[in-house]
Amino acid sequence: MDNFTFYSPTYFVFGRGTENEAAHYVTRFGGTKVLIHYGGGSVKRSGLLDRVKASLEASDIPYIELGGAMPNPRSGLVYEGIDLCRKEGVDFILAVGGGSAIDSAKAIAAGVPYDGDFWDFYSKDMVITEALPVGTILTLAAAGSEGSSSSVITHEDGMLKRGASGDAIRPVFSILNPELTFTLPPEQTANGVADIMAHVFERYFTNTKDVEVTDRLCEAVLLTMIKESPKAIKNPEDYGARANIMWAGMVAHNNLCGVGREQDWSSHGMEHELSALYDVAHGAGLAVMFPAWMKYVMKHDVNRFAQIAVRVWGCHMDYDNPENTALEGIKRLEEFWGSLGLPLNFRELGAKEEDIPFMVKNIGLKEGEHMGSFVPLYNEDIEKIYRLAL
Amino acid sequence: MDNFTFYSPTYFVFGRGTENEAAHYVTRFGGTKVLIHYGGGSVKRSGLLDRVKASLEASDIPYIELGGAMPNPRSGLVYEGIDLCRKEGVDFILAVGGGSAIDSAKAIAAGVPYDGDFWDFYSKDMVITEALPVGTILTLAAAGSEGSSSSVITHEDGMLKRGASGDAIRPVFSILNPELTFTLPPEQTANGVADIMAHVFERYFTNTKDVEVTDRLCEAVLLTMIKESPKAIKNPEDYGARANIMWAGMVAHNNLCGVGREQDWSSHGMEHELSALYDVAHGAGLAVMFPAWMKYVMKHDVNRFAQIAVRVWGCHMDYDNPENTALEGIKRLEEFWGSLGLPLNFRELGAKEEDIPFMVKNIGLKEGEHMGSFVPLYNEDIEKIYRLAL
Repeated sequence: MDNFTFYSPTYFVFGRGTENEAAHYVTRFGGTKVLIHYGGGSVKRSGLLDRVKASLEASDIPYIELGGAMPNPRSGLVYEGIDLCRKEGVDFILAVGGGSAIDSAKAIAAGVPYDGDFWDFYSKDMVITEALPVGTILTLAAAGSEGSSSSVITHEDGMLKRGASGDAIRPVFSILNPELTFTLPPEQTANGVADIMAHVFERYFTNTKDVEVTDRLCEAVLLTMIKESPKAIKNPEDYGARANIMWAGMVAHNNLCGVGREQDWSSHGMEHELSALYDVAHGAGLAVMFPAWMKYVMKHDVNRFAQIAVRVWGCHMDYDNPENTALEGIKRLEEFWGSLGLPLNFRELGAKEEDIPFMVKNIGLKEGEHMGSFVPLYNEDIEKIYRLAL
Repeated sequence: MDNFTFYSPTYFVFGRGTENEAAHYVTRFGGTKVLIHYGGGSVKRSGLLDRVKASLEASDIPYIELGGAMPNPRSGLVYEGIDLCRKEGVDFILAVGGGSAIDSAKAIAAGVPYDGDFWDFYSKDMVITEALPVGTILTLAAAGSEGSSSSVITHEDGMLKRGASGDAIRPVFSILNPELTFTLPPEQTANGVADIMAHVFERYFTNTKDVEVTDRLCEAVLLTMIKESPKAIKNPEDYGARANIMWAGMVAHNNLCGVGREQDWSSHGMEHELSALYDVAHGAGLAVMFPAWMKYVMKHDVNRFAQIAVRVWGCHMDYDNPENTALEGIKRLEEFWGSLGLPLNFRELGAKEEDIPFMVKNIGLKEGEHMGSFVPLYNEDIEKIYRLAL
C-alpha cells in the first residue's frame, strides 16, 4: 500500500425530502448570496427548482439563477457564470442537477476568485486551491461529483474535454434524495450505472500490492451495482434500489476506493474523446471503452482479472487456466451492461472508425508519452484499443 | 434505507514516516499551543514521543505534555487535562496513542470550553457541540476513534463506563503510520482485530431493509480483517497486513458502514461492564460477548446470519435449513477469533459468574427499559446472554 492522504469533508444529507433543507445548509456553510446553477428543463418540470427557491426565500437568502449546463458541460457557460457571480457579489454556488451541473458549478467556483482564465486549471494541471463554496442537490447517480474534488469541462474552442481538481472544489454539502432520480429514463439510469462502475474499475486495476481493503471496498460497490441496477431500470420508483445506487455512486468516486494505490484512468481519457466528438453520454462511452481496454491489458495481470471475475461476477476459478476465468469476467460485464441497454461498441454508440486517428491525436500524447499506469498506453496502443471497440 | 447524514471531515495522513508531519498539520488546523496527550511508556520507549516533540519544536510550536491515559481511560486524568489546558492556554490537543489516549483527548477537548462538568456529556446523552480541535497520531488499530465522533470514558466514581459523541470531537487530522503498530504484542493486535470486527457487527445486524451498499461495505471490512489479521499476528512487521488492518479499522467506525440503518450496540453495552469491572481489554471483552449475543438473537433473522456466513465466512448455504448456515457462521467467527488467541468466554477472560447480577444492574436499565435495536434486550435477556458467555 502506498502512502496517501484522504480527505472527504463534504456534509452529506441523504434521503427523502432532504432538498427542502437546502437553505439551512447554505447558511451553515456561510452562503449569503447564492447562484443556483442547473442544467436543462427537467429540474423546472419536476418542480425541484421551485422547491429549492422556496427554501431559500423562506430563509431570506437572496439568489440568482443560471441554467443551461449540458451533458459534457461547456466553457462558455462557465465564463458566463464567473462574470455573473462577480457582478452580483455571489458567495455561494448551489448546483442542482447531475454531474454536469455540478462540474460546471465547480468550474465557476474556481474561476471567480482567480485572476487568470479558469481554463488554466483544466489545461495546465494546476491544483485548485481557492474557490467559492459549492453545495449540491443531486438528481442523477453517476458522476460522483457530489463527493469528489474534480470537475470535467469541455472547451468549445477545439472541443477539448479536460479535468481539474483540488480540495477547494469539494462540495461543502451535498443533498442526495433518491426520489429525485425516479423520473430518469432507463437509458440515463444505465449510463449512470456504467459511470459509477467505471470509477471503480479505474481504481481497481492497479500494480500496487497489499491493497486488500480497497480491493474489497471496490468489490462492495460493484456487487451493489450488480444487484440494484436492474431493479432501478425495471421499476424506476424502487426507492431502495435508487438509494443504494445513489450512495454507491458517491462512494465510488470520493476516492475511498482508490487510496494507497496507483490508479489508471486511461479508459476515461479515451472516452473523453468519444463524448467530446459525438456528444454521447459519458457513461455510454465508458461502456464501450472499458471492455475493449480490459481485453487489451488483461494479460498484464491475469490473476487480478480472475479475482474480480470470481469475487464480483461469481465465476468459478479455472485453476488450470486462470485466463479463462479472467475472460469470463469481462464477458459477464458486457452481458450485464448489455442487459441494461448500454452500447458496447462504436456501432451501437454511433462512433465512426474513420475518426479513430483524430481521437488518438486529440488525446495529445507526444512521441514517447503514455497515459494510464496499470499498463502504460502509447498512441499505437490507444489506436488498437479503439479498434477493439469497433 | 433510512434518511441519514454522513460527515467525516477528518484529514487522514496515512503511511510510513507520516508522524514527522505532525507539526505541519497542527499549524494547518490552527493549533498554536499544544497539549500532547498519551498513555503509558510505549510511546516514550519507541522514541515516537521524541519525534513528535522534535517536529513541534522544529516549527516553533509550544507544547505541554500529559501522559497516563490507560486502557478504559479514566475521568480523573480528563479533569486534570482540562485544568491544565485552561491554565496553560492550550488551543489544540494532539493525542499520541491508541483509542484510550484519543478518547481521553476528546473528553479533555470537550471539557475545556464547557462551563459544567465534562461528565455531563457522558452521563446525560448531551451532544458535544464545542471542543478544542483534536489531532491524532495512532499507534494501535482498534477503536476507530481516529475517525469517529465518539469517546468512551470510565468514571472512577462507581466505575461507570459511558460514551459521548458529537461532530465537534471528530479529529481534524489523524496520522496513521502502520509501522507504529509493529511493536504491538500478538495479544494487543488480536484485541484490536476483535474491536474492529465488532464495530462492523454492531452495524451489520439491523432491521432496516434495502441496505445492500452498507451490507457490502461491512462485508468488505470483515473480509479484509479475516485475510490480514493472521498475517499481522504471525509477522508483526508485515507492513501490508498492518496497513490494511489500520485503514479497515478507520472505515469500520467512521460510520460509513452504518449510515441509513438502525444499529444495535448492545454487545458494546454488555462488554463495557466487563472491562469496567475487570479492566480487561475492550476487544477481548467483545470477543466474549459477541458470539453469545449472536446465538441469543440469531433466530430473529436467520437469513441475515446466513448471509454473513456465506458472504464473509465462505459457508455453503444450506437451502433446506438456513439456520445451520447461520450457526456455521458463528462457529467460524469463534474459530477465527480463537485462532488469534482471543478469549471466547468468561473463564478465558477471567470474569466470574457471580458478578453477572451486578453487571446487569450496572447497565442501569429500569423496569421495562431495553437496549439494542436488532432485538431489544431487557434485563432478563442480558442476564441470559452473559450466562451464554460463561
